[in-house]
Amino acid sequence: VPVSWTNSGVDLHLELPPGRGRRAALESALREAIRDGRLVAGAPLPASRVLATQLGVSRGVVVEAYAQLVAEGYLRSRPGAVTEIAQAPGLPQPATPRPHPEPKWAADLRFGRPDLSAFPRQAWVRALRRAMVETPHVELGPGDPRGSRQLREQLAGYLGRVRGVVTTPAQIVVCSGFSQGLRLACEALGGMGISSVGLEDPCLPDHRAVAAAAGLAVVPVEVDRDGARPPTGAAPSAFVLGPAHQAPLGATLATHRRIEFATRVTDTGGFLIEDDYDAEFRFDSRPVGALQGLAPESVLYIGTASKSLAPGLRLGWMVVPPALLDAVVEAKRRADRGTDVFTQLAFAQLVRSGDFDRHVRRMRQVYRRRRDAVLAVLASRGPAWDVLGIAAGLHVVAVLPDGISEDDVFAAAAKQSLALTTLRPFWHGEPQLRGIVVGYGTPYEHDYAEALTRFGRVIDALR
Amino acid sequence: VPVSWTNSGVDLHLELPPGRGRRAALESALREAIRDGRLVAGAPLPASRVLATQLGVSRGVVVEAYAQLVAEGYLRSRPGAVTEIAQAPGLPQPATPRPHPEPKWAADLRFGRPDLSAFPRQAWVRALRRAMVETPHVELGPGDPRGSRQLREQLAGYLGRVRGVVTTPAQIVVCSGFSQGLRLACEALGGMGISSVGLEDPCLPDHRAVAAAAGLAVVPVEVDRDGARPPTGAAPSAFVLGPAHQAPLGATLATHRRIEFATRVTDTGGFLIEDDYDAEFRFDSRPVGALQGLAPESVLYIGTASKSLAPGLRLGWMVVPPALLDAVVEAKRRADRGTDVFTQLAFAQLVRSGDFDRHVRRMRQVYRRRRDAVLAVLASRGPAWDVLGIAAGLHVVAVLPDGISEDDVFAAAAKQSLALTTLRPFWHGEPQLRGIVVGYGTPYEHDYAEALTRFGRVIDALR
Repeated sequence: VPVSWTNSGVDLHLELPPGRGRRAALESALREAIRDGRLVAGAPLPASRVLATQLGVSRGVVVEAYAQLVAEGYLRSRPGAVTEIAQAPGLPQPATPRPHPEPKWAADLRFGRPDLSAFPRQAWVRALRRAMVETPHVELGPGDPRGSRQLREQLAGYLGRVRGVVTTPAQIVVCSGFSQGLRLACEALGGMGISSVGLEDPCLPDHRAVAAAAGLAVVPVEVDRDGARPPTGAAPSAFVLGPAHQAPLGATLATHRRIEFATRVTDTGGFLIEDDYDAEFRFDSRPVGALQGLAPESVLYIGTASKSLAPGLRLGWMVVPPALLDAVVEAKRRADRGTDVFTQLAFAQLVRSGDFDRHVRRMRQVYRRRRDAVLAVLASRGPAWDVLGIAAGLHVVAVLPDGISEDDVFAAAAKQSLALTTLRPFWHGEPQLRGIVVGYGTPYEHDYAEALTRFGRVIDALR
Repeated sequence: VPVSWTNSGVDLHLELPPGRGRRAALESALREAIRDGRLVAGAPLPASRVLATQLGVSRGVVVEAYAQLVAEGYLRSRPGAVTEIAQAPGLPQPATPRPHPEPKWAADLRFGRPDLSAFPRQAWVRALRRAMVETPHVELGPGDPRGSRQLREQLAGYLGRVRGVVTTPAQIVVCSGFSQGLRLACEALGGMGISSVGLEDPCLPDHRAVAAAAGLAVVPVEVDRDGARPPTGAAPSAFVLGPAHQAPLGATLATHRRIEFATRVTDTGGFLIEDDYDAEFRFDSRPVGALQGLAPESVLYIGTASKSLAPGLRLGWMVVPPALLDAVVEAKRRADRGTDVFTQLAFAQLVRSGDFDRHVRRMRQVYRRRRDAVLAVLASRGPAWDVLGIAAGLHVVAVLPDGISEDDVFAAAAKQSLALTTLRPFWHGEPQLRGIVVGYGTPYEHDYAEALTRFGRVIDALR
């Protein structure tokens, strides 16, 4: 018969084995729970009086069982304190955080992360507190799979204002980061009878995995300095593109190609999925509006807070063309029924208060300075480096001169204990270009100078 | 050429059409953005000086364009204040929340929700603030798809203590609610070559949809008062079961059936998915441990904060047997790369502080009183009602006597403006039983008496 109890701070669950005295049964159940690790060292036990009442035994039974297990070393009891599980040798110890398995680097310039130390923690807590004061109870329930109405209204205004996206809140689906957005989009394409999707080559390896997991065949699409090249001949009717800042090469999709892709999918009944992952951080004087504004009926736009705030938020947003909306909403419902409401409400408040715009503006200056510093390191070291994708984002690509391999880069970086990313894993097949993907967003602000110093030494070593 | 600007509070984006004067181009771009709804009424425009600098035009151009659009009614300008988008007739107005499309009920006793007004908002904000003070920056980054180590440690301790689950933090995967957990589990089963899964009949309709979305064929499994009945003959090697409190019938899976299911999947290399959705709220004196504790190698346990806190959190946890762990982690990575870290950290802090246990204990008393009140309403009205699943959870099932249909129930409930759930949608095919699923968790505390009064009138009307 299972028995559970509650004391002042904790609920516990035990099963007293039948067929012997209650004291022996209680001792045995406690021993087993401790050996199994279900009760770990330091966990308090209920007061004997409380437990006795709940088990329906005399208090003496519990007192004696505790005393016996103290004697055996399973429990520890100090006068005036609760009885607790002991740190006895041979018993399971509380789990301690295992060190992260990856090597410890002295500095990190890898691709893909913003400066996590810059996350506006106070503003975020403030926004959540405000949202918690203002939000009706019903919003904490299972709601619209598209997400909080409040957030979708903020996003419709924000994306129109900042990115030239043409939408209404009804077409917005809040998702758990870019990856989920891509997954849902691919599932919706599959539901429309589309069986393959063109992905830029190179692109993020995760995108290939996500498209494949959704059951789509992946077709590589060549990329040059004008961005993705519309394929000639037979080709998929759906593409994932990064028009503002192709990941990782950093090209901006040329206007004639925007039009060509948009025309192609309109003609074939296909769709473009627009990856607008780091558009907040554009440094040149010619910001590039979202491709979505050119063809709102054919472009499914996806943005994310992973670069502007933190990947750990797992917050993204999709602007879905009417023809795909039902399928995307249904895919979202079946994936997880909706994204965390609390995070949505806090982010809506952050946008409404202007704190988000202020944070983005401040970080744009920070990242611009960091980019300039990377370029200065490269410029000061001949031979002249070809650097791609400098107009925006959190990384640049330094193309390797002939005769230098990516393995040479890793060898030099290892000597400097500097973590770096290269182009290799981004290619679908054979690399067409070798290069270092320098992620200048990754270091914390106070670590950046040191990271650059080490980067400079790596570049020196490659000459 | 696209142009964007930044003023004190907002980032804006516009494209000035080429081929005419700058003033006309600016006017045209602003008009179009306002007509499209990208700039909505009340949105401020940058100071003319600021915009002029950023556009590289003289200030006079901007001043004149603004004046023209004020004259046309697009903009509004007051002395000493910023120029802003006007509320002119015929222009898109700011989106206002549309009324929820469903009818407004005077009272709601539907299945599936906890009392959202009882969510511990202050404790939650306090927990997040504490977590934000203590969490190293690196935890805000893209992390382990299994979730925050801190939370997994808390969960391992909590689930061992309260539910008799045998696990280590390494086997725990934090997910975005039960639905996602089920989806990931089904994807992992598919990856093991398992092509069909047994689902209890009746069960939540969403579970059928989620299993199907993951590509599994769904096989109904009969349920009686001892819970799910192990099928005879050929049967799938994987099952989703609610051993503690079958949804919706509320049976507790009998011990001999627990053993039979566990033995069957062990023998066939299959798995059980344990749905432990409302186990925190058990009212009788015989709490039922998790099935997982009986067969940790074969049972994938899923729990959720949707009933104990709020569905809007989208927070759940899986305890994954070693044979499925890699596949589940990979499925999670491809679904969304991980669950919202901020919510995980706040919940870990809520458990650590004891606030979660206190909240659950308090709500257990609340729901127990509510359940007793439902039973009293039914007991006071003959003929004797057969009521199922009273030992736990947030609902009971009142079996309809012969001669009363579920349509009769809806008709009577509509007259009372009372929202109710019946058994019908839970069955895979033909209903084997008709009944009202009374969700006593749904009303807010101060609405509960009124809801019960209306429920009593519905029962009266059915006689």
